[in-house]
Amino acid sequence: MFADRLAGDAARIQAHFDQVLAGLDALPVAQAMAYATAGGKRLRGFLVLEGARLHGVGPERAIWPACAIEALHAYSLVHDDLPCMDDDDLRRGRPTVHVKWNEGTAVLAGDALQALAFELAAHEDCGPAAVRADLALSLARASGARGMVLGQALDIAAEEAPAPLSLEQITRLQAGKTGALIEWAACAGARLAGAETAPLARYAGALGLAFQIADDILDEEGDAEKAGKRLRKDAEAGKATFVSLLGLEGARSRAKELAEAAEAALEAYGAQADPLREAARFVISRDS
Amino acid sequence: MFADRLAGDAARIQAHFDQVLAGLDALPVAQAMAYATAGGKRLRGFLVLEGARLHGVGPERAIWPACAIEALHAYSLVHDDLPCMDDDDLRRGRPTVHVKWNEGTAVLAGDALQALAFELAAHEDCGPAAVRADLALSLARASGARGMVLGQALDIAAEEAPAPLSLEQITRLQAGKTGALIEWAACAGARLAGAETAPLARYAGALGLAFQIADDILDEEGDAEKAGKRLRKDAEAGKATFVSLLGLEGARSRAKELAEAAEAALEAYGAQADPLREAARFVISRDS
Repeated sequence: MFADRLAGDAARIQAHFDQVLAGLDALPVAQAMAYATAGGKRLRGFLVLEGARLHGVGPERAIWPACAIEALHAYSLVHDDLPCMDDDDLRRGRPTVHVKWNEGTAVLAGDALQALAFELAAHEDCGPAAVRADLALSLARASGARGMVLGQALDIAAEEAPAPLSLEQITRLQAGKTGALIEWAACAGARLAGAETAPLARYAGALGLAFQIADDILDEEGDAEKAGKRLRKDAEAGKATFVSLLGLEGARSRAKELAEAAEAALEAYGAQADPLREAARFVISRDS
Repeated sequence: MFADRLAGDAARIQAHFDQVLAGLDALPVAQAMAYATAGGKRLRGFLVLEGARLHGVGPERAIWPACAIEALHAYSLVHDDLPCMDDDDLRRGRPTVHVKWNEGTAVLAGDALQALAFELAAHEDCGPAAVRADLALSLARASGARGMVLGQALDIAAEEAPAPLSLEQITRLQAGKTGALIEWAACAGARLAGAETAPLARYAGALGLAFQIADDILDEEGDAEKAGKRLRKDAEAGKATFVSLLGLEGARSRAKELAEAAEAALEAYGAQADPLREAARFVISRDS
């Protein structure tokens, strides 16, 4: 069962975070780091662990980049929720970090989580030095001003733009904002094995976009309680979303096409890649 | 001349940043990254370039970690200046990033500069994979919740503490807040050469503390115009500083002892290490 597999990987990731964060000074910033890395679907960490398995790399090595990408994702959420960014007070059904502590602690905890992400990606237990250098460098590129931060900067710029974004523009924005980290997660297993990343990058490109379209659909018709966060903020602010651009039915069918394209990209891996195929179906059918 | 040498290294670092940041999307976040990495003494980058020279490693390789540590330092200043942190509106004689743009841009530009630091530290042109992995991992450890962020978190906690910090506590705070990055900078050259870092770590431990004591002295009796930032904030807030704990004369003589200890740690390197010795004298005699 896919849900069991995802839950098993999520538990493994949580246990590793518990170890990694143990022994930090008992300060609010350390408590906030643990809080921000707890919970969530762990989809990115799952992609690392399953992509690694596909290449014969076990969890004792893959858990490091799996936690690295989850730490990086957590930092991005903590900073994105700040009053000067999206100003969200609810995340995963709980108060956001700056609400529970304060803004200064949220800035610092996010900063420390980003550093932690690179500490985990370059960790000695990931494998040979060539792999560790490759993981750290590719993670830096995926998360910086040509990757995730570019997507967030385009998102901010869109708020001040005279007209809502076009489909092409929002696709580029999302390729940075969510796509870059999802691609890194899907490819990390191949990097651990020193293998070709191209098939998994194709898979991730389609998966990431399907994920974002599904997010926009959930934002339109989802249940705020299940989602654990405020919904319909983008639509109310007049921002373009895949739903506003394609309509609800158009968005649904585009997400389905993309999930099928993601599955098709895994052909060379055979049945071994079934968990990743199920992940593609999961991202467009989830209710939170 | 030491000043010429520092200026030459600073110019080299600026030219490399110009190259590295070229081609980013013309967004406020990219402009803010260039703005935040311009100017400053470049002491950390200088330590990298000179430490590398000491180990026979030329600037074509050393410029990468030199810019990495300057990017990391720049991110820490941008975030530290935020209203929810130190709330400073002046830095290097110019408006801080959140004043010139806005808080969201300052958070994002800092985040992207941190990612850039790791991109530069793990860059292919730094050398063999073992060196790149070592640089990235050690930089992550120096800057995270056991290094620089720990120092900043202790600094925030001190504001809410019932009594000013003791000398021991403030020494630990500063070892994180400024010491960890100065140590990384001084040791990066040895890492580039795969050499022993212990002598340079001893040098940096004394240098970093001398630097911070000199900062507290400048804060007490310096010229805000030369410093390019607001002064006497800590003292006015009743926070302990090396000057409040040791007195002005006591702080001066402690800084001098530490600078001498830093010089002594370089004994094995002979006259080759004279620029680093001059750096130790510079940090306690600078007027900004």
